[in-house]
Amino acid sequence: MRILGIDPGSSATGYGVVERVGAQIVHVAHGTIRARPKQPLAKRLAMIQRELCAAIEAHRPDRAVVESVFVSRSPASALVLGQARGAILAALGSYDLPVEELAARQIKKAVTGAGGADKAQVQAMVARLLELPRPPAQDAADALAAAICLAQMGRLAEFDLPARSRRRRRRDLVPPGTTA
Amino acid sequence: MRILGIDPGSSATGYGVVERVGAQIVHVAHGTIRARPKQPLAKRLAMIQRELCAAIEAHRPDRAVVESVFVSRSPASALVLGQARGAILAALGSYDLPVEELAARQIKKAVTGAGGADKAQVQAMVARLLELPRPPAQDAADALAAAICLAQMGRLAEFDLPARSRRRRRRDLVPPGTTA
Repeated sequence: MRILGIDPGSSATGYGVVERVGAQIVHVAHGTIRARPKQPLAKRLAMIQRELCAAIEAHRPDRAVVESVFVSRSPASALVLGQARGAILAALGSYDLPVEELAARQIKKAVTGAGGADKAQVQAMVARLLELPRPPAQDAADALAAAICLAQMGRLAEFDLPARSRRRRRRDLVPPGTTA
Repeated sequence: MRILGIDPGSSATGYGVVERVGAQIVHVAHGTIRARPKQPLAKRLAMIQRELCAAIEAHRPDRAVVESVFVSRSPASALVLGQARGAILAALGSYDLPVEELAARQIKKAVTGAGGADKAQVQAMVARLLELPRPPAQDAADALAAAICLAQMGRLAEFDLPARSRRRRRRDLVPPGTTA
């Protein structure tokens, strides 16, 4: 089971791919897609989409996960983030990848043990869990953290729990409004 | 000069293509892309993008125009609209189409003479201006209206005004924050 995590942004979009091998979660790849700020919006979004498609082709994930949006931000920033998310989700949809949405707190808690962890803690714990030589850049670390969180959820659901509580567990863990 | 107008929406996206032939603006095509509401968001956005790309391939526009977003809507609806816009803009960017953004009031005024015109007035005037046998559906009419507005601006800039005031005129007509 290969999982692609994405941290969407209009200037920098992080991605990270992990694979669950038995009870282990191993690192496959990560990176940051940076749009040139001087380019028109449509070209920036096309570029993000093109590079994300290249990453999907290269690493062939089975499913994807993005952070769900905290909607109490301003309408203007919700629009900007929405546009980046739209380009990214359309790319995932074009590969028929099931997409899960997970809350930032849930992702941070899964990786660091604390829902309120800061960026540096997430970077450090992602590096430790995946045995990376150094912490990944912020956007890529957030993307890897989302992928790790989903991989752990899958592990709980498939290995650790009997069938009945597995169903209940899954319902608890997958937040309402998930797009998958 | 062929212009593709788009009225983005997460459930229905209208598109319309017009061509400026001398001083005339003639109808080329229009339609509405409807996403299946039961499908996951990523698949809906991928579908909108796929059908929009098919329309671009079929009608080969030289430039595109979308309505600029009125940002005082709620963060939640700005996010939803942003996602549809992101998928659409990425498609336009992948064809290297220059994209203009025009305010809804400006588009309505260009087509009906009144910035506060209602949907039915826009539909009726679009049908009259383009000599269509019947008014197009709302989303497609809005898309055609945007394309007509941009075509009229181009006509003013290129035919009616001397070089110097043409430059000034263009600056007045193209709103700040245009993505082209």
